Amino acid sequence: MKELEARIQSEGHVLGEDILKVDSFLNHQIDPNLMQAMGNEFARLFESQGVTKIITVEASGIAPAVMAGLALDVPVVFARKSKSRILSDEAFTADVYSYTKQTTNQIRIEKRFLSASDRVLIIDDFLANGQALLGLKALADEAGASIVGAGIVIEKAFQPGRKAANEAGLNNIQSLARIAAFEDGQVIFVDEEK
Amino acid sequence: MKELEARIQSEGHVLGEDILKVDSFLNHQIDPNLMQAMGNEFARLFESQGVTKIITVEASGIAPAVMAGLALDVPVVFARKSKSRILSDEAFTADVYSYTKQTTNQIRIEKRFLSASDRVLIIDDFLANGQALLGLKALADEAGASIVGAGIVIEKAFQPGRKAANEAGLNNIQSLARIAAFEDGQVIFVDEEK
Repeated sequence: MKELEARIQSEGHVLGEDILKVDSFLNHQIDPNLMQAMGNEFARLFESQGVTKIITVEASGIAPAVMAGLALDVPVVFARKSKSRILSDEAFTADVYSYTKQTTNQIRIEKRFLSASDRVLIIDDFLANGQALLGLKALADEAGASIVGAGIVIEKAFQPGRKAANEAGLNNIQSLARIAAFEDGQVIFVDEEK
Repeated sequence: MKELEARIQSEGHVLGEDILKVDSFLNHQIDPNLMQAMGNEFARLFESQGVTKIITVEASGIAPAVMAGLALDVPVVFARKSKSRILSDEAFTADVYSYTKQTTNQIRIEKRFLSASDRVLIIDDFLANGQALLGLKALADEAGASIVGAGIVIEKAFQPGRKAANEAGLNNIQSLARIAAFEDGQVIFVDEEK
């Protein structure tokens, strides 16, 4: 998505080897118009899939997921994250390890909001190591729901997240921006590769 | 807002004396169409105020804030919440006590996303004791920004949040649903009072 790539180029900050900060429009400050354009693009990419529900994880996934839900006219459920493991008969839960923060969080969705008849689209802001995506997939699997695919805002294609998701059986992954590498603090997109 | 009141009546669950669960459309599962209608209503209520920025706090404030931002065509900043106090020259911070969870969180907004020239609209999902609202006001005050008012999805008018905000100088508070009381597990709205 050219508009998103342009914003990453103009406003993103590359930190170290593998961190991209895009907190001026995606995960601290949010540009609502860009979010809506991204939501519309996710809807276009998955419109033939019979999506009945979108799931994401708080907090940065919420804005793009809600805009996709608006465009597809389906409810959105955001998984709650907590540092403590809470056992409950009423929730699906999964553990998600964050490589950035080096902590494990539990994510949870109340059982009454996901069912075996759902056709689930997973939305998230980043795909890097794939831990959040695999956690969300686990919640949908626990519910017996069908997963139609995943829509990602920014994929760091040089990290193993897509491969891990594919190996877990999640194949239809659509990323609005795919980053091949960071070179000298610059972002190189996959479709710019020679 | 009649549509919101109807959803609270049909889907809300009153727990104990003062808890209202609305997690089927507001703070776990989200109805994107209702969010957009609420965002449009916030925009109508504050359209003459020259708003330049909306601030809210993760996670449940994000969806209504982004829809209000879309309707008003202004950026949205969501404050990050953390249990640990992080000192930083780069962020405005405030402490927020949660009566529900009986914990204090720090909320923070990076300084580069709020300035003295901003005219800030605060959006949040609930107004009860007013702690989150006062915390968000403190962040805007630290930036020297002007606060045009606050847009609240659901106000528990029998709790002291509005009074506390008024006493702190925040007067233009617009709530889409104002709850006068919970009686026998039923929700009584302010405008239904005799």
